[in-house]
Amino acid sequence: MLLYDNPLSGNCFKVRLLFSLLGIEYERREVDVFDRSDRPEILGGLNPGLRVPTLVLDDGRPLAESDAILVYFAEGTEYLPEDRYARAQVLQWMFFEQYNHEPNVAVLRFWAEAGIEGDPREVATKLAGGYRALEAMERHLEGREFFVGGSATVADLALYVYTHVAHEGGFEMGRFGAIEEWMGRIRALPGYVSITA
Amino acid sequence: MLLYDNPLSGNCFKVRLLFSLLGIEYERREVDVFDRSDRPEILGGLNPGLRVPTLVLDDGRPLAESDAILVYFAEGTEYLPEDRYARAQVLQWMFFEQYNHEPNVAVLRFWAEAGIEGDPREVATKLAGGYRALEAMERHLEGREFFVGGSATVADLALYVYTHVAHEGGFEMGRFGAIEEWMGRIRALPGYVSITA
Repeated sequence: MLLYDNPLSGNCFKVRLLFSLLGIEYERREVDVFDRSDRPEILGGLNPGLRVPTLVLDDGRPLAESDAILVYFAEGTEYLPEDRYARAQVLQWMFFEQYNHEPNVAVLRFWAEAGIEGDPREVATKLAGGYRALEAMERHLEGREFFVGGSATVADLALYVYTHVAHEGGFEMGRFGAIEEWMGRIRALPGYVSITA
Repeated sequence: MLLYDNPLSGNCFKVRLLFSLLGIEYERREVDVFDRSDRPEILGGLNPGLRVPTLVLDDGRPLAESDAILVYFAEGTEYLPEDRYARAQVLQWMFFEQYNHEPNVAVLRFWAEAGIEGDPREVATKLAGGYRALEAMERHLEGREFFVGGSATVADLALYVYTHVAHEGGFEMGRFGAIEEWMGRIRALPGYVSITA
């Protein structure tokens, strides 16, 4: 399999992390996240969103959207529950991540890494939105080990990737004790790799 | 079942539409989409994102995020394929909808309906992003009847709700012939209801 990838992208790290946890082998091809002018050429036939990660399966079929890729490979493993309601909760947190968390937390981190100075009003809106997402996670994790059920699922992986680098985007993480403990549980999973691996 | 709902919200319409197609009965309770100050009180214990739709199942368990609700109820019906890759493609288009389509197309429509004058730069960004999403849909639908496979799935419903009212947000839809024909196929589904029903 071939993963169109970028080492800076948390969305790509989701896939690399699950593949490492499950011992799945694949090749990586780096796609630029700063100059995006070649994306229609590279990803046009594979991913309507022209984003990374984009995966090409062994038989040549493409699959896009980090969370759809996670669910596809987690099927039948401990990382996706069989119970219908629990699966719906996993999806609920993954959609929460892409709508409430990523556009705030990931984008501010990307701007910081890329040296982009955002419009001050937009930065303030994204900081507030990001803190709301982190506070919702903190409340949910108080008294829980993982987001859904008693073990790690792809919902945890999806939420972990940009949370564990949120400080790089200017988020003050000291107040999120339950999140901190939960991140320790993710890092303790057998097969865990870092975002820079 | 109880659906926390708003008649203006396409995300809520997704759920009402699927319930109508499947003949599922439920109650509706309207939540204000302009004054959101009472949301922590109403939705706080039910939905970390504090958004509508939020659903409370017959046994009292909550479920949130429109697309997670769709998948939960489509399970075992014609609206969610059994094939693993086809299911992943359905999810791919649903994540595309929430990330690339809704934040642009739905937000501009909401501003128009609410009489909110957006910052001109932000409006331009959302128009461009919305057109990119619509163009990706148009390209995919050329030569296809539905987004995944040969019949309507929850991916079609998810993409339909804000596309069919995109003109209300200022999008010029005349150039999207494949989308127009596809929307006709959705409206022809037995049990279809309108967003105002």
